[in-house]
Amino acid sequence: MSREVVVIGCGMTKFGRHDDKSLMDLLVEASIKALDDTGIENIKIDSVYVATMLAGELTHQTAIASALADQLGLLPAGAQRIENGPASGGSAVINGYQAIASGVCDAVLVTGGEKMRHVPGDKITDLISTMTHPIAEYIHGVTLPSLAAMFTRLYMTHYGVTREHLARIAIKNHENALRNPYAHIHQRITLEGIYKGPEAEVNNPVISDPLRLYDSCPVTDGAASVVLCSAEEAKKLGISKPMVKIAGVGNATDTLALSERKNPLVLEAVKLASQKAFKMAGLKPQDIDLAELHDAFEILELAESEDAGFFEKGTAHKAVEEGVTLLSGSFPINPSGGLKARGHPVGATGVAQVVELTWQLRGEAGERQVKNAKRGFCCNFGGFGNNVTAIILERV
Amino acid sequence: MSREVVVIGCGMTKFGRHDDKSLMDLLVEASIKALDDTGIENIKIDSVYVATMLAGELTHQTAIASALADQLGLLPAGAQRIENGPASGGSAVINGYQAIASGVCDAVLVTGGEKMRHVPGDKITDLISTMTHPIAEYIHGVTLPSLAAMFTRLYMTHYGVTREHLARIAIKNHENALRNPYAHIHQRITLEGIYKGPEAEVNNPVISDPLRLYDSCPVTDGAASVVLCSAEEAKKLGISKPMVKIAGVGNATDTLALSERKNPLVLEAVKLASQKAFKMAGLKPQDIDLAELHDAFEILELAESEDAGFFEKGTAHKAVEEGVTLLSGSFPINPSGGLKARGHPVGATGVAQVVELTWQLRGEAGERQVKNAKRGFCCNFGGFGNNVTAIILERV
Repeated sequence: MSREVVVIGCGMTKFGRHDDKSLMDLLVEASIKALDDTGIENIKIDSVYVATMLAGELTHQTAIASALADQLGLLPAGAQRIENGPASGGSAVINGYQAIASGVCDAVLVTGGEKMRHVPGDKITDLISTMTHPIAEYIHGVTLPSLAAMFTRLYMTHYGVTREHLARIAIKNHENALRNPYAHIHQRITLEGIYKGPEAEVNNPVISDPLRLYDSCPVTDGAASVVLCSAEEAKKLGISKPMVKIAGVGNATDTLALSERKNPLVLEAVKLASQKAFKMAGLKPQDIDLAELHDAFEILELAESEDAGFFEKGTAHKAVEEGVTLLSGSFPINPSGGLKARGHPVGATGVAQVVELTWQLRGEAGERQVKNAKRGFCCNFGGFGNNVTAIILERV
Repeated sequence: MSREVVVIGCGMTKFGRHDDKSLMDLLVEASIKALDDTGIENIKIDSVYVATMLAGELTHQTAIASALADQLGLLPAGAQRIENGPASGGSAVINGYQAIASGVCDAVLVTGGEKMRHVPGDKITDLISTMTHPIAEYIHGVTLPSLAAMFTRLYMTHYGVTREHLARIAIKNHENALRNPYAHIHQRITLEGIYKGPEAEVNNPVISDPLRLYDSCPVTDGAASVVLCSAEEAKKLGISKPMVKIAGVGNATDTLALSERKNPLVLEAVKLASQKAFKMAGLKPQDIDLAELHDAFEILELAESEDAGFFEKGTAHKAVEEGVTLLSGSFPINPSGGLKARGHPVGATGVAQVVELTWQLRGEAGERQVKNAKRGFCCNFGGFGNNVTAIILERV
């Protein structure tokens, strides 16, 4: 019934520390790359979606979508900002999709970004924590690393996941990021260095037991951008790059407080968002060639890969042991380096996942290209799994 | 091509000062009223849209849409927050419309709200100013009242608008608000009291010349909410109230800095957003029976009514003289009392406009009912006209 939507352009800034650039500079840079990538000069954009979690709090600028439309010379396009915690990017892509599928727009620009590194770490940790339950969690000093630590401990106890499994995920994602010029961290890490060796305790100090420094993603500045277009309009425009369509989208919520979940081991919102996306796409997890998952902490890559349906619950760490999720494995996860090593400029992440999948499905991913990638899945994870988006892309 | 969308429920909190309620309390109250108003028990909501400009900055809570979905027992509905400055509400309604029209959702809840009065006025003025141009305006101390003052002066000089014209708009909107139990300000004002009489200078001090206290809207706490549904699904549900459909939507941007506009007297984004909405609805301004306009300052009601196409440019003040826009006039504007007297909890305003139009089109507006209201128009105005939404509702 609704119109088919394709990704016709994508781009991103280098992720990392950008002391010399404002949030707007980053959004503009990623957007211009995505617009240029369409190959169409002065492509008409009907609406601009900006995903950012903390623009107001960190850069003292609100209504930033209008500002971006103006900076880019895209007036009088519509404009709006989507804020959905760390799932802002995924939500913006879905709302951009809906703007086109509804027939209101033909082409939209979706740009996500965050500028965070200029602010002291404790302030960032506090601001990120404002997405937890204000009474059941926040006022007790709960932070995202502390929630992830409890979740990790539960997973270790219940399923036999070990610190070595977690370290292997980090090592894989750092390894992939070495092949991604846009990644924040270009650093090879080893089991010796962060887990087994004599220096491991020093290199990798405890943050929130059992989590250590290398178990979580860095604080990153950066932006990512995609141009979405109706398939019909894209044909008219004569886009020369391979077409990648948005085959399915899903968004689901779960209890805000982690303690209120029937089974805290199950990421219900990952499950339901993924099921929606698969249903819409008419596909099954087995049909997917690669995934970009929201590994703000390694345990999330593991749990999401299970709850999205790629592995039986409680078995993904076995797949890690077997190398299934390596770039060379049968089901690569986070070829980009993931949040762990590509970095996590909060509002950019969900969009960056779609950018990576598009590059992979077009065969443009260079040294980290997944062979014969035809269908990709990504999951953007808000709060501690209380708001999750899932998106499936398919090469047409 | 796309599906028809109807408003099947609406509700709002009393607008005003709510020291005893949190932002979440306000969002929940308005949402429950809107859900109840559908008359359908446990109606299935597929996605929750929350419009708020400053939830993070003023209440230290982010990702608030997931929190609302949880509070309301609407899990696992999708959820996202839209921030678009003072146009957040209109943008959220349009994105909710698109979610349904695209076929992704059947029913969505759109709730806008702001909790502002607990914060000192200078902090509010500063935070609201974060939507101006950061370099061309904000750092020079430009605030929304100062922009409105310059715009008002220009209008007075160019078109012969007088302080009395402005006062008449304020008096009308205060008068209408006396008939609206949800309005923030229930106070009759007179030409004597605020403009002509011996006490006028004292009652109505200068804020930003030529603007005085009674020329601008108050700072308000409150929330408003609508339930949108596909027309098809609404029929299946057996909604008993008169159906009101979203006939047209439009969103457009203009230069962020007021000084960059070719003709600063013309609100280009109002013009273009309105034209889009009228085109989609297949209607003309003459077909509209009443309008809710964004009168954060009286001059905006005047200018919007012209640029939306209801009056020739530069003539709306004549219509004010003739009483055309009074509740008893031939084209009532802001029967609710508008931002001026109903109040302006920033994120709530665009949604409250849709609530008022729905009540009017259903014939439920009580003492302020516009006779034979069949089609209504509303305009939500972001920044200083750099981002505007227009929505047309029609009784089916």
